[in-house]
Amino acid sequence: MKRTVIAAAVIAAATAGIATAQQGPKPEDEIRYRQSVMNVVGRAMGPMGAMAQGKAPFNAAVVQKNAALIDSLMGLHWNSFGPGTDKGAPTKADPKIWKETAKFKQAAEAGQKAVASLVAASKGGEEAAFKAAFGEVGKACKSCHDDFRTKEFHN
Amino acid sequence: MKRTVIAAAVIAAATAGIATAQQGPKPEDEIRYRQSVMNVVGRAMGPMGAMAQGKAPFNAAVVQKNAALIDSLMGLHWNSFGPGTDKGAPTKADPKIWKETAKFKQAAEAGQKAVASLVAASKGGEEAAFKAAFGEVGKACKSCHDDFRTKEFHN
Repeated sequence: MKRTVIAAAVIAAATAGIATAQQGPKPEDEIRYRQSVMNVVGRAMGPMGAMAQGKAPFNAAVVQKNAALIDSLMGLHWNSFGPGTDKGAPTKADPKIWKETAKFKQAAEAGQKAVASLVAASKGGEEAAFKAAFGEVGKACKSCHDDFRTKEFHN
Repeated sequence: MKRTVIAAAVIAAATAGIATAQQGPKPEDEIRYRQSVMNVVGRAMGPMGAMAQGKAPFNAAVVQKNAALIDSLMGLHWNSFGPGTDKGAPTKADPKIWKETAKFKQAAEAGQKAVASLVAASKGGEEAAFKAAFGEVGKACKSCHDDFRTKEFHN
């Protein structure tokens, strides 16, 4: 009996926020979530950027791990740009996201495609292929940020 | 020539912050990073928590995907609790983390181990095995949060 109570409490603690999720996450939670995803993606880009710039030696294992991590993250946050999530917490999301949705979707898909190519290239373990694929990821990041990210935070 | 300049600019844009990373990330960046990782982990726990509580039907594919995602994230942020990262931005990290480092490391390892078991269980696609393994993940989360997370944010 005691065991059951503890188990229930543990599951409740581990899943706090599910009630909210079922009603749809709050705008501030969506904003924080997409920023979190981008933050983890950005950190994973770092070591690969250093390699691409020749500031760190090429390390195939690190590239493979970080490319796979970014790939698993890139699909997560696009759904967090839903209606009503343009404000609610400080954000750099450009209002254009909710006006030019087709163009934003296209930019998101280009990013995911570039990352998928980087994952494929990373499996070969070749520096030149990595650099080419990483350059394409960088272009996709920059293009989407140029079009859909404001320079300063706004509410 | 133009192409080279663009490529260099793209790489520089994609890797902004590397100079900082090489000098060691700032405490506020480390705090934001570990919060980002935990936020993405928390969101990935959600659908599994709903299944464990019987609020959503068991879905083996979702469990497998989310367990793998959490597994790839769990190892990332422990290194972001380094010396000097106990303050610098609002955080719930308990000061005990920097005093009881061995105990904290043990708690971190227990969490990673529980998640690895969940990944293994998820591959079998069986609900009972999932529930048992997920319960252990919940316990590890709760135990570490009870010991090393404060209830309110502090600076």
